[in-house]
Order: sequence, then structure tokens, then C-alpha cells
Amino acid sequence: MPKTDISTLGEFGLIKHLTRDLPLQQPSTCKGVGDDAAVMNFASAKLKEMGVTSPRVLVTTDLLLEGVHFNLEYVPLKHLGYKAAVVNFSDIYAMFGTPTQITVSLGVSARFGVEDLEELYAGIRLACERYGVDLVGGDTSASMTGLSISITCIGVASDKEIVYRNGAKENDLICVTGNLGTAYMGLQLLERERIAGKEEARGGEIKAFEGREYLLERQLKPEARRDVIEALRKAGIRPTAMMDISDGLSSELMHICEQSNVGCSIFEDKIPIDYQAAVVAEEMNLNIVTCALNGGEDYELLFTCPLSDYEKLIPLDDVYLIGHTTKAEYGLNLVGRNGEELPLKAQGWTAF
Amino acid sequence: MPKTDISTLGEFGLIKHLTRDLPLQQPSTCKGVGDDAAVMNFASAKLKEMGVTSPRVLVTTDLLLEGVHFNLEYVPLKHLGYKAAVVNFSDIYAMFGTPTQITVSLGVSARFGVEDLEELYAGIRLACERYGVDLVGGDTSASMTGLSISITCIGVASDKEIVYRNGAKENDLICVTGNLGTAYMGLQLLERERIAGKEEARGGEIKAFEGREYLLERQLKPEARRDVIEALRKAGIRPTAMMDISDGLSSELMHICEQSNVGCSIFEDKIPIDYQAAVVAEEMNLNIVTCALNGGEDYELLFTCPLSDYEKLIPLDDVYLIGHTTKAEYGLNLVGRNGEELPLKAQGWTAF
Repeated sequence: MPKTDISTLGEFGLIKHLTRDLPLQQPSTCKGVGDDAAVMNFASAKLKEMGVTSPRVLVTTDLLLEGVHFNLEYVPLKHLGYKAAVVNFSDIYAMFGTPTQITVSLGVSARFGVEDLEELYAGIRLACERYGVDLVGGDTSASMTGLSISITCIGVASDKEIVYRNGAKENDLICVTGNLGTAYMGLQLLERERIAGKEEARGGEIKAFEGREYLLERQLKPEARRDVIEALRKAGIRPTAMMDISDGLSSELMHICEQSNVGCSIFEDKIPIDYQAAVVAEEMNLNIVTCALNGGEDYELLFTCPLSDYEKLIPLDDVYLIGHTTKAEYGLNLVGRNGEELPLKAQGWTAF
Repeated sequence: MPKTDISTLGEFGLIKHLTRDLPLQQPSTCKGVGDDAAVMNFASAKLKEMGVTSPRVLVTTDLLLEGVHFNLEYVPLKHLGYKAAVVNFSDIYAMFGTPTQITVSLGVSARFGVEDLEELYAGIRLACERYGVDLVGGDTSASMTGLSISITCIGVASDKEIVYRNGAKENDLICVTGNLGTAYMGLQLLERERIAGKEEARGGEIKAFEGREYLLERQLKPEARRDVIEALRKAGIRPTAMMDISDGLSSELMHICEQSNVGCSIFEDKIPIDYQAAVVAEEMNLNIVTCALNGGEDYELLFTCPLSDYEKLIPLDDVYLIGHTTKAEYGLNLVGRNGEELPLKAQGWTAF
């Protein structure tokens, strides 16, 4: 496709073009794109009707840089936009909140045309539409090298509902959602094809990936677990501690245990693994449990809740009990299939 | 100074190190750095005591990229941190609001050490301290090339007080604060010295700049006009439209006139010019009025208010009446010293 040079629109023209006809879905949004700042009202009667009392405002932010956080050789721009938005929503859900607005700032090098940014924005818009979030601000400027995406997400939660990382108590249940290590295996597949220089890596749609589409989707187009948050609320469960799994289960367990001053025991055979991911791991001589513990970007939820919530937890879809918290002095442990206990090492995923 | 490799601390260690002992000054801040999101309460009794009723939340964001928005050959990191924070505060003041929190995300290439980031954060912290703003979140990750800084600023304003760009009426007074074109002349000085390869350009403290320190300061370490916002409030003036001048007076006038559907006449001899800036412009064969109209980064305020506020405006320090709005069909005009009227062209400052 021929590319339209961004300079033909100018900075203001470009922002106007990309943010035209933005629907505003949130009752809290008063003023979106087009002024020095966006304006929101979190004390509105509408929010009260929706059950948000004593509203608290949540803010989270992410900076994604080409070559570090994403590789455009195999990440389609629309997917990238979708993912960049959704991972921020995930942080707000992980506080037991609801994402309401985002701002998007882009740094764009000369190799990108207007059509590229339209693609990126199409993904952001789709994510906003699906999750009921308003795009309320941001800017676009030049960059010397590659693409930089900075997204800030605003959310809201009732005072009493917010779940921090530091609230886990001894003998709480530890749960995760979905399955772990899958996004990491998707990345390994994409990287393998890229190194092999195959066309298939682009867009991830062709036969090398047949039967493995789910792994790619988990890497390229993750979803935030709004469904689980809603199910927890409906079931009357308020986690004692929660976070989303972006850096790997071990690393996130370490955060919750450290901040809550507890230890934990988790059971290897309880960690939910997708069977496709397991097959690909086998094929690549990787240990799938290690991938589940340390592979990043699953954007599933990790939470703790009191033992007394056990009966309420069991019927929930896609929520898995993987262990329990302990006294802090027991440390963080993984109980293997043979019953052997090993200290958990948080290798995590690090951008350095 | 020897540099400490960032990897010695790790990502989490680094953030902990940079954000340690952060004071929280704002009554609206509930939870700062350390969870999936920061948490704020804008309905607090304390805010009401401070005169904020029907609070609205303001959000603005900026992405600054090395080589596009700043040049580390002559911008000291501490100044850069200070400026990156202050320009965001300026956007919130330009809504007639009060900045309350910021988040900071950094992308850092391998040539930066822990000490560099400490310098940058020292500037951010100083800005936060001076303006009473809390640093509540953010992250730091690797970058392939150079330094990226993304800052999001949250602020608060009473519903009835917020000033947008679209409220100017026909025959309103047009005012600016401080002086214009000065930051641009500071940049020209720094660029000239840089091109000459002189040591003096680093840090901007040596004799080539003697007597011109003010110009450099305006470029390297601008301030947000909180003082003017407070003075306006005290004088009982609520502007009909306002924005801060980051892209040049012409460009900002265009925004206000377009969004308010008015025209304007401004008077060349009323545009406030700093005499040092005028001298340097002369020396460099630049037209200082053109610099004042189109040079960016002054972070002064441009606002309109009703003719009936004239008496209240006159006693205000550092506020200058430069013209008035007109019917939209008259367009945007600059009245020269000889009385000749010229259409205003908004060259603006563009990052493309």
C-alpha cells in the first residue's frame, strides 16, 4: 500500500484525523481530545447508579518501545494498538477497578505513514470499544528511531473495593486465571519463524502456525480478565491481594508475598497449562513449567482470598487454585509432582 | 563520575531506588508507587476545605524523545527532569486547575547509568516539591536508542472554574503573561555554541552566555505560571478561554480562535519582549517579533477575558494586554507598528 507522508497532515491535522468521531461511552468523561487536558467527573450521579460509591481514581501508565517491547517484523500494527491498550486495562482490573479513559502518545519515525498510524489506532479503538473505555487525549510527534507508544489509563473503583498487592494473609488461597506460559510460547514460535526468515512470521496467519493460532493470539492480542473480575464480584468474592501476571507468576508471587509479608506454597501440578503450549515447549526442548513460572505477558490475574471463600471459588470458570500463603519465614516454595519442595526463584521478565 | 550499570539494581530495584522516600503532599493521593495503579480520592473533605467543589479530574500527557524534544549535548539531566514535569503542570494550570500527581515512565539506553537517572529524578522531584505535586507511579525499561520520557499529570479543578479553549467571545480582551520568544532565543544560543563545538554549551554556565543566563533558563528550566493563575483567581477574573504557549503565540491564537469561533487583532507593539532576547535576535539577524509569534516552549499563558475585567487586569503583575477578539470572519490579524494589518500565519513549532 502506498504510504501517505505524515507531514502532509501536520501534527494537529494528524491528531484530528486519528481521533475523529471518537465515541464517548463513559459517564465520567466530560471533555476528551482537543484541549490542554482531558476532564473527568468521578462524582457523577450515573456512577453512583452503576454502584460506584466513594469513587477512587486509578492511574496506570506504560511506555512501549520498538525493539524492546515489540518487534514489528511480526507484530501487526493493529494488534499492537489493541495490546498496548488492553495491558493497561488489565492493570486497572487488577486493582478490582474499571478502566474508563486512556490517553495515547506516539513517537513516530519517518518510515511510518498515515496508514500505519490508522492501523495502530484501529487496534486502540477496537480495544476501547470492547472494554467501554474512552480515548480522551494524547499527542503524536516525530521520533528519531522507530515507534514509541505511551499509554496512560484512568479507572475508577469504590473505595472499599480496591484490592492492593499487600493484603494477603497467612493461609489465604492462591488462585490464577486462564493458563500460564502461553504468551511466552507464542513469542518463541514467532521468534523461531522470524529467525528462519519465513514470510509466515508476518501477521502470524499462515500454515507454520496451523493449530497454534491460540498461542499466537495470546502473544499478539491478549485480553484483560474483565470477565473474571465481574464473576468474582458476582460471587461476592473480594480478593485480599491481586495483580495481573505481566512478568511471570514467580515474579508476581514475590511481589504479593513481599508486600503482604507472607510466604507461599504453590503446587506444580495445579498450574494451569495449555496443551498446545505444552506440545510446542516439548518440541523446542523447553520446560513448560519454567515457562509458566517465568514467561511474561500472559495478563492473567493472580489473587489471594480467604479460605472461607473456597466454596464460592470452585464454581467459577477459568479460575484455578494453585496453592496457599504461609508464614513469611517459610519463604516462597514450589511443590513438585513428586512432593518435593523447591524454593521459587523469580527470574521474571526484565526489560534490562 | 563512574557510572553504575542499571542492571546491577534490576528493574524493580531501580524503581524502588529512584522513588524511595517520596513525600506525598496532596490530600487526594491515597496510594503512590508500588501497585498496579496509583489511587486517588478527589472527593475528600480536605479538597473541599481548599475550595474545590464538584471536583473534576484533569489528565494531560507528554512524550519527550531524545534528539527530537531535547538534546543532551547541552541539556543537563536535572534540568530536563524539571522541565519535563513543569510543562505538564503548565497544561493543568492552563485549564485553571491545580496539578496534583504525576507518573513518570522512562526508556533508557545502555549508555545511561544509575547516577544519570538519579539526576533526572532529582529534577523531577524538585519540580514536584516546588509545585506541591506527588509522584505516584511509572516505570523504567530499556530502550534501543537514547532516552524517552513519558509524563502524565493529573490535576483537579472545580467544575465551574475550568477554562477551555473554546469559550472566547467577540470583543474579549486577549492577554499573555511574561514575555515571548525568549525560550526560542535561548535555544538558538545553545545551538550556536553546540555547533561551534564549544565546551560552554554543556550546562550553559560559562562566559559565552554571560548576561544571557535568563534566556538559557527560559529554555532549560521553564516555570509554569501558577503565580498568574493564583493572581487571576484572587482578582476574581475567570478567563473565557486559556491555553499555555508551548508551540508559539500564533499557533495557540489559532487554536483558541478556531475553537471559540472568533477572529482576533493583536498589536505588534504590545507583545512583551525581553530586551536580552531582542539583543540576541539582532545579533543573529532574526526578527524578534517573528520569534515571539512562532518560537515555542515559552510556557506562558494566553487567555481571553471580558472587556468588563479590564480594571481588574491592569494591576496584575506580568500580565499584558495584546489585543482583542473579533468576529470570526475578520480572521486572525497582527497590527504592525505602522498601523498596517497583516494576517497572522501560524507556523507554529512542529515536531514533524
